[in-house]
Amino acid sequence: MSFDCPLPIRERDCILLAHGSGGRLGAELVERILLPAFRNPALEPLDDQAVLPAQSGRLAFSTDSYVVTPLFFPGGDIGELAVNGTVNDLAMGGAKPIALSLAFILEEGLSMDDFRRVVKSVRNAAMRAEVPIVTGDTKVVGAGNGDKMFVNTAGIGVVPEGCALGSTHVRPGDAILVSGTIGDHGITVLAQRQGLSLGGNLTSDTASLYPLVRTLLDGCPGVHALRDPTRGGLAAVLCEIASRRKLGIHIDEASVPIDESVRGGCELFGIDPFYVANEGKLVAFVPEALADSALEALRSHPLGRRATRIGHVTADPPGVVLVRSPLGGERVLDLPFTEPLPRIC
Amino acid sequence: MSFDCPLPIRERDCILLAHGSGGRLGAELVERILLPAFRNPALEPLDDQAVLPAQSGRLAFSTDSYVVTPLFFPGGDIGELAVNGTVNDLAMGGAKPIALSLAFILEEGLSMDDFRRVVKSVRNAAMRAEVPIVTGDTKVVGAGNGDKMFVNTAGIGVVPEGCALGSTHVRPGDAILVSGTIGDHGITVLAQRQGLSLGGNLTSDTASLYPLVRTLLDGCPGVHALRDPTRGGLAAVLCEIASRRKLGIHIDEASVPIDESVRGGCELFGIDPFYVANEGKLVAFVPEALADSALEALRSHPLGRRATRIGHVTADPPGVVLVRSPLGGERVLDLPFTEPLPRIC
Repeated sequence: MSFDCPLPIRERDCILLAHGSGGRLGAELVERILLPAFRNPALEPLDDQAVLPAQSGRLAFSTDSYVVTPLFFPGGDIGELAVNGTVNDLAMGGAKPIALSLAFILEEGLSMDDFRRVVKSVRNAAMRAEVPIVTGDTKVVGAGNGDKMFVNTAGIGVVPEGCALGSTHVRPGDAILVSGTIGDHGITVLAQRQGLSLGGNLTSDTASLYPLVRTLLDGCPGVHALRDPTRGGLAAVLCEIASRRKLGIHIDEASVPIDESVRGGCELFGIDPFYVANEGKLVAFVPEALADSALEALRSHPLGRRATRIGHVTADPPGVVLVRSPLGGERVLDLPFTEPLPRIC
Repeated sequence: MSFDCPLPIRERDCILLAHGSGGRLGAELVERILLPAFRNPALEPLDDQAVLPAQSGRLAFSTDSYVVTPLFFPGGDIGELAVNGTVNDLAMGGAKPIALSLAFILEEGLSMDDFRRVVKSVRNAAMRAEVPIVTGDTKVVGAGNGDKMFVNTAGIGVVPEGCALGSTHVRPGDAILVSGTIGDHGITVLAQRQGLSLGGNLTSDTASLYPLVRTLLDGCPGVHALRDPTRGGLAAVLCEIASRRKLGIHIDEASVPIDESVRGGCELFGIDPFYVANEGKLVAFVPEALADSALEALRSHPLGRRATRIGHVTADPPGVVLVRSPLGGERVLDLPFTEPLPRIC
């Protein structure tokens, strides 16, 4: 006969409600997993807030929550998305990212291995993007009240002197460029969710775009606006700018770069690639006279190798996006009522 | 016989998956509910990031997710918590909050009335705290994959020149003050969840503490550290500082202010009030010689009216929090393994 010590077992193989508490398990999660992964001078004191040195220049600020399912997919996972997504939102304003926050909402029962894997992925993505995680939060909700893991990041960036990017600067006469193929991320996640293999080398394009933006702005400082076509895809970016700025947008469909396996996936699922999310592409609005130098700058960076010009902006018809098909017909590209792909990011 | 038009109905009385999409319903949620509630120059362009003017001074940065259930409780709701909680995390560093982000994760089926009510509450709390919501995000997950609503806020603050608050400054000889009664928030939410009426005027203490911090630091600039005792309550703050700074902390239990109905609730639920969350209180560590002037400053503000001195810091025993009971006995206050109250904030 043996006596078992009634002390609670500390090493758990899954997330418990107590990991989100102000108690010992919550503290252990911080001390054993989060702090070792992200250690840096601003995070280290573990006070209620991180304190960063004074910055000269305007600040960019952005946030996004990530609810993608499945958590892991070819080319990335929710942790990598959460870093790159917020870094990219800052970069679209020309801002150099200087600090990220990281907040988890975990569902009780999530495997500790999956949690560690995402934390590692956040760390690696943050290192690649050269931005520290300086503050964070972890909450746990009961089984059935969440879906494994939701991640929120917010980020601060510094906008260089003289840089003034924004959709309010888009003008008739601007050329419209994309930095590469569209639809890769959304179709990859959808195929993974459906258990389909679409052939080719289908992977998410998740990447930090700041280095590409830097290269573009160094080579062509006169860019008017940058947007990353995530949820709602290229269509959402174009429709939003046409509608809010009351401008006409003309797209030449044949010029929009689409990977063959993505095109196949779109046909299989019956989805227009214009509406599919990207996580490592940008759309640039540049004055016509600068279009060639902007393209050259984009193509000089590995992330912009397949950059191409896809259309232009006019005054008329205001608020409308027109797409010219390869056969010469023209169709109106509209915001969809809903989206074909929920929980893609 | 009549024909019904098959066009989708735009005005919905509950949240649909499409409200989280890059499509028309997502855009409508922004244009009809969020933008009108929070309109300000940094938010208005609706670009991927908000751009803020250059700031002189160090920056404070903090984030928290809120998963409290129920969403509404006496004295506040999840929206008010989300604003005050992040404002308070910044204020504990002495920082004046200058901008907040706001990210919702909504469960499909959430009533539109509840969503509007929380948005209104966020707006009112942000106006009271004099901090704009400059950027945001809304995601929707399917029914059963969330729990009505989770809210994340992140905040940027500016730390005044010369201000150096932080737990690393806590020293032997420091006096420990609290700004008022403890346990109000946690017991209010728990009573609401259990459908119990505990008598008295039991309400959450959720409040922006920045004005109280300002008053305190103006009257007594030599404060060493401030913490707000949220998850894990007063115990978590004291145990964390004792453990990380390897100091002894001595608390006089009789001096800790506790409302009568909170005390009754704690007895009923069998919970130690030291472990119960607060959302509008602060703990201050101040050099002994400044304790009286710090108390005077705190009491001069409505949020600090019941401020009191509850203990002091010593070199020994390192890492231990000792509580002297009204009868003279001494007990060790330890971080609980877990927490009695999940999803309290």
